[in-house]
Amino acid sequence: MLILQAIADLLHVSAPVVSGDLMITGVATLEDAKSGEISFLASDQYARQFDTTQASAVIVSKKVRLRTTRAVPVLVVEDADLAMATVLAKFAPPVPRPAPGRHASAVVEDSASLGEGVCIGPHVVVGQRVRVGRNVVLHAGVFIGDDVTIGDDCEFFPHVIVRERITIGSRVMIHAGSVLGTDGFGYRWDGKSHAKIPQIGTVVIEDDVEIGSCVCIDRAKFAVTRIGRGTKIDNLVQIGHNVRVGPHCMIVGQAGIAGSAQLGAGVVLGGQVAIRDHIKLGDGSMVAACAGVMENVEPKAVVSGLPALPHRQSLREQAAFRRLPDLVVQVRKLQEKIDQLQATLAPKEQG
Amino acid sequence: MLILQAIADLLHVSAPVVSGDLMITGVATLEDAKSGEISFLASDQYARQFDTTQASAVIVSKKVRLRTTRAVPVLVVEDADLAMATVLAKFAPPVPRPAPGRHASAVVEDSASLGEGVCIGPHVVVGQRVRVGRNVVLHAGVFIGDDVTIGDDCEFFPHVIVRERITIGSRVMIHAGSVLGTDGFGYRWDGKSHAKIPQIGTVVIEDDVEIGSCVCIDRAKFAVTRIGRGTKIDNLVQIGHNVRVGPHCMIVGQAGIAGSAQLGAGVVLGGQVAIRDHIKLGDGSMVAACAGVMENVEPKAVVSGLPALPHRQSLREQAAFRRLPDLVVQVRKLQEKIDQLQATLAPKEQG
Amino acid sequence: MLILQAIADLLHVSAPVVSGDLMITGVATLEDAKSGEISFLASDQYARQFDTTQASAVIVSKKVRLRTTRAVPVLVVEDADLAMATVLAKFAPPVPRPAPGRHASAVVEDSASLGEGVCIGPHVVVGQRVRVGRNVVLHAGVFIGDDVTIGDDCEFFPHVIVRERITIGSRVMIHAGSVLGTDGFGYRWDGKSHAKIPQIGTVVIEDDVEIGSCVCIDRAKFAVTRIGRGTKIDNLVQIGHNVRVGPHCMIVGQAGIAGSAQLGAGVVLGGQVAIRDHIKLGDGSMVAACAGVMENVEPKAVVSGLPALPHRQSLREQAAFRRLPDLVVQVRKLQEKIDQLQATLAPKEQG
Repeated sequence: MLILQAIADLLHVSAPVVSGDLMITGVATLEDAKSGEISFLASDQYARQFDTTQASAVIVSKKVRLRTTRAVPVLVVEDADLAMATVLAKFAPPVPRPAPGRHASAVVEDSASLGEGVCIGPHVVVGQRVRVGRNVVLHAGVFIGDDVTIGDDCEFFPHVIVRERITIGSRVMIHAGSVLGTDGFGYRWDGKSHAKIPQIGTVVIEDDVEIGSCVCIDRAKFAVTRIGRGTKIDNLVQIGHNVRVGPHCMIVGQAGIAGSAQLGAGVVLGGQVAIRDHIKLGDGSMVAACAGVMENVEPKAVVSGLPALPHRQSLREQAAFRRLPDLVVQVRKLQEKIDQLQATLAPKEQG
Repeated sequence: MLILQAIADLLHVSAPVVSGDLMITGVATLEDAKSGEISFLASDQYARQFDTTQASAVIVSKKVRLRTTRAVPVLVVEDADLAMATVLAKFAPPVPRPAPGRHASAVVEDSASLGEGVCIGPHVVVGQRVRVGRNVVLHAGVFIGDDVTIGDDCEFFPHVIVRERITIGSRVMIHAGSVLGTDGFGYRWDGKSHAKIPQIGTVVIEDDVEIGSCVCIDRAKFAVTRIGRGTKIDNLVQIGHNVRVGPHCMIVGQAGIAGSAQLGAGVVLGGQVAIRDHIKLGDGSMVAACAGVMENVEPKAVVSGLPALPHRQSLREQAAFRRLPDLVVQVRKLQEKIDQLQATLAPKEQG
Repeated sequence: MLILQAIADLLHVSAPVVSGDLMITGVATLEDAKSGEISFLASDQYARQFDTTQASAVIVSKKVRLRTTRAVPVLVVEDADLAMATVLAKFAPPVPRPAPGRHASAVVEDSASLGEGVCIGPHVVVGQRVRVGRNVVLHAGVFIGDDVTIGDDCEFFPHVIVRERITIGSRVMIHAGSVLGTDGFGYRWDGKSHAKIPQIGTVVIEDDVEIGSCVCIDRAKFAVTRIGRGTKIDNLVQIGHNVRVGPHCMIVGQAGIAGSAQLGAGVVLGGQVAIRDHIKLGDGSMVAACAGVMENVEPKAVVSGLPALPHRQSLREQAAFRRLPDLVVQVRKLQEKIDQLQATLAPKEQG
């Protein structure tokens, strides 16, 4: 709980605050908020909800045009979404963590080195020669294979699996059930069977990466599969061997990136996107949800569809597609008219 | 093993049963059944297989028109598929479960409360202040975070992960490897990096829900992500933060529902469907497999395609699409004819 | 490390080798290779990289036409990719495995029988009457349910879950986090709720199958879900109940196969492919990435698109689709011309 003035101070709101001593008990959407809660309004789209909200205070983006006479206290900020993230952090209940040290049921090899403040939960396994930095949290059932290196301040949620020889930076968060370092999917037909191509490479996860649940990031055939610093990956994403993801990318749920594809800096992949093997996506490019990208994408380009095309072209084609059944009818009628015209003309010529 | 008459009684078949004392040893499809096994026929589509089946008896839906003189005993019922489910339950071998009480290797916090008849398998972890109802089965390696509440008669298969503060109803079944309560995927670009928006909400799973394997259901940003009573979810499904799924929905494998989307009652999503964030699907609406739904869907509407459209329109457009290459040729020929007509007319006018 | 001549011998290269005593320290792509490393060139497509590579030797496919005067030692082979797999195996660091015998924290039922040389890692669970063949490796946290049979020389990576009554052949590799034997997704609406249809069947995995991470293979309704010998399955794949996959298939990441579908021998499914329930794909058929297959596929056919069509037709339609917006414009102009022609003709007739 915080008083409203404390929230205003937190957000560097300089304007005087009405009812600054109001006690704020929680955070909710305009629609769901109850008395005592604070809400937020970041776009004109939801302005109508402002008129009926039960929230006791609202954080509003500067750009929103409020046409209302309601007396609810308002904190005007540059970006209400960003402000809300700051406020939420104050109301967030702490994430439960295993106690510092090692749980009695954990199996930690003697040759592993653990930094200060490390918390190791029940049934965790830490392999030989693993190096774990400071304040790392390994929740219950996490598996760390031999010769893995982990930086400082990482948190791996229950049952995360990091196979052998992988390198992970600092402040990396990996959510429950994800698997790093499975063999890449590589075979050669030898005339009788699919012969396995050994996958002798590894995986590098740079600083400040966050990885969702049930994500698979495969080990490289040789060299590394790399996830660049600050990149965020949602649940159930597949990243093939030798993929290189640049810094600050966003990869939404169930997207798949096939082997050796390269994403530049700040690339955004929507949900269920598929990226073909060996192609390159330029810096700042965006791929709309459900698209299948079969060719290289230019920097800053926006693509959509299956196969993916520049988004404008895709929209133009979709619009034409909507008219296609009518077009078929129109062409049939044209055909009839022309046949008629020809019939009309033919006798004339004979006559 | 059951005698045929016992099966007839189970299905409330009042007609006299031929060979009622026949011993039935198992259940199989018409195609695969061997002597001693019972099979079923629910649609005219498979009627031909009835003529050649080796099954010793067949359960047949009333509506099926059997044109055969085969002497195999038949039990006529309203709905053979439903009847088969009843019979299968009698032949189902029991699912092995850990012994009642706690396995010695399980880690259960003292502040957790366990109902009567609870079975806790090896390497299970149960956090602080967890409340577990009666007859709940936690298979090997299940993780239950702090402050979770679980109703009666639930069964969680190996390695299910339920993060902190989640509420689960009664008779909920969660299959192996699923993860509930991962942080929703929410960030704000702060000019230098993707700043994490704290996800302080929770997840509510209502009564009689069944969840497949490797399913991810994310924690709400605030308030709850909710799965309505009686809803069934297949494997590898992604459910984003703040999603609300109504009662009695069916969500088929690899479907994904983006943040804050809402499904009404009895909604059906086919396999690999994608639902855009913040949209609403009305009660009883259906989405065909592989569709990508980008806009709200009316109650009882059936949509398909990418982007999803009303199914009839989608079919009409697909049919037109099939004719598109021919249409291109047809238009080229029309163009030629018209050019010819114009050429024919032009001299006339001059003349 | 190997000398170049040893690599030549390994590949049965009969031609004399330049610098045969050169010490080779590793393997890399032409682009990434450093001095001391060997690389490979399997197609003319990458021939330009040959001119600038820092590799100390290159394995080249016979068919590649090298137009270069570079003095780097070359080993000419039939198939450079296949040769590379052989060389990689020599450079592959050994996969770390639990020590032979059972880890003290593993829970193995007395009625389980373990073959010679079995390695059982920490926190593994092996159920009642399980039979495990020789030299099987069960990594940390693996769960094997009651009455499972496993052949010789299998390796299951951390946290693999094999539910009760499943049969697995020899030399089967299952990667971390996969789940075999979850109930198939089957319900019947009983008027009030989705009644669960018991799934009393099982799963059979034949010899030499490899299964990626977070793969779900469901238990049959009755009889078996079967994966044929030598088939390879990538990560995050969903295989429904009663599916039958033939021998030597390749199933790429995030593909989904719905219930009772049948794949013949040597079928290839690209990434994110969806296969409808109850359909059949003939021997040697191929499905392009992202396709949704709604109907049977002929042997050796190649299909693509959503819904999937023969690949040639699909390409023809896509090409026509690219021209659709122009076609709309063209038809509008034709319409104008015809209207003009009619107007031109009409007065004539009156005149």
